[in-house]
Amino acid sequence: MGKDSKVSITVIRRVPKYYGYLTELMEKGVSRISSQELSSLTGFTASQIRQDLNNFGGFGQQGYGYNVKELRKELGKILGLDRDYKVVLTGAGNLGNAIANYQGFKNAGFNIVGVFSRYSNINPNMKDIKIKPIEELEDFIRDNNISIGIITTSKDNAQEIANMYVKAGIKGIWNFAPIDLEVPEDVALETVRLSESLFTLSYFIQEDKS
Amino acid sequence: MGKDSKVSITVIRRVPKYYGYLTELMEKGVSRISSQELSSLTGFTASQIRQDLNNFGGFGQQGYGYNVKELRKELGKILGLDRDYKVVLTGAGNLGNAIANYQGFKNAGFNIVGVFSRYSNINPNMKDIKIKPIEELEDFIRDNNISIGIITTSKDNAQEIANMYVKAGIKGIWNFAPIDLEVPEDVALETVRLSESLFTLSYFIQEDKS
Repeated sequence: MGKDSKVSITVIRRVPKYYGYLTELMEKGVSRISSQELSSLTGFTASQIRQDLNNFGGFGQQGYGYNVKELRKELGKILGLDRDYKVVLTGAGNLGNAIANYQGFKNAGFNIVGVFSRYSNINPNMKDIKIKPIEELEDFIRDNNISIGIITTSKDNAQEIANMYVKAGIKGIWNFAPIDLEVPEDVALETVRLSESLFTLSYFIQEDKS
Repeated sequence: MGKDSKVSITVIRRVPKYYGYLTELMEKGVSRISSQELSSLTGFTASQIRQDLNNFGGFGQQGYGYNVKELRKELGKILGLDRDYKVVLTGAGNLGNAIANYQGFKNAGFNIVGVFSRYSNINPNMKDIKIKPIEELEDFIRDNNISIGIITTSKDNAQEIANMYVKAGIKGIWNFAPIDLEVPEDVALETVRLSESLFTLSYFIQEDKS
């Protein structure tokens, strides 16, 4: 199945969510699921789900629903999870340490092969990972065919690191610094804004009180 | 300004994003901004932004735009950021360590006053934080008027911790375990799914190639 670039970004952004739920279902041993059941899990309407999946060819069978394993596999292909990625990470603080050591990303095919920092030995906790000096970053990216760069620096350093990533030819940046980075159009950028999620929570806590 | 519970959840979810951008603008010394400029920052249309902000009373002035500091302050009130929250965290691995030590949450009024783990001394890296045994969790929540519980355990333990939080009367759960937790309707739940963001990135990297 080829990528259809006419599929809207809003649909695309729902695919990782479907994929995540299907992974949970598979791990629980569930072998098939209706769009109705997927609806109650994901919060999207059943018709929305059928419409979304039809964008990619439609994997359901009338009266049977979706085969969890097959659907997950096909959505995984769409997301590019049927291959491995070489990844670097810059910013060896606590968050960088957590991300670099998280087994889940590795299991999904994202291999962090280099961790960089402006400071040598900034985080003695990162004992299992050798931290390389930032001066070697660009050559390392070019020499090792790195496709993704993670940024876990402070927000003051994030744009500079992004610029180095871009210059060295990286294809995608996964940014955890709380700042809106500027990158060229042909470089993909995903920024994780943890505080947005926390502030949504504090809104709803108050709601309960009113 | 009171909370208007008729405002839709989709609008509410955009408020933390506005708040984040306004914080960045304020830190950069920008004092006022048009809905047009906010549009190019956030990716929402200018009319969408005006409509969203009108939901809360409308803070803009024709021909002037928005006062960054004032608008940020008002949105902060809506989000409940004009007060402090007492927070506990359970799961003292690398991610728990990163979250517990992140100064940004504290600056926003979220004070992590207790860190709990099923295992004593599981993470020797967490040297600045005393880890309490999980057996003390529920009493601690009740005795200290805790409103938010963070979960950074493995996904196998997450539901059990959520149940303890609920039982002890917590108002909101911020979950980092990659699993869909079940909580009563009067408990707010926000789940951070980092892999969704990563998988969106891998989709777009491929797109470049096709």
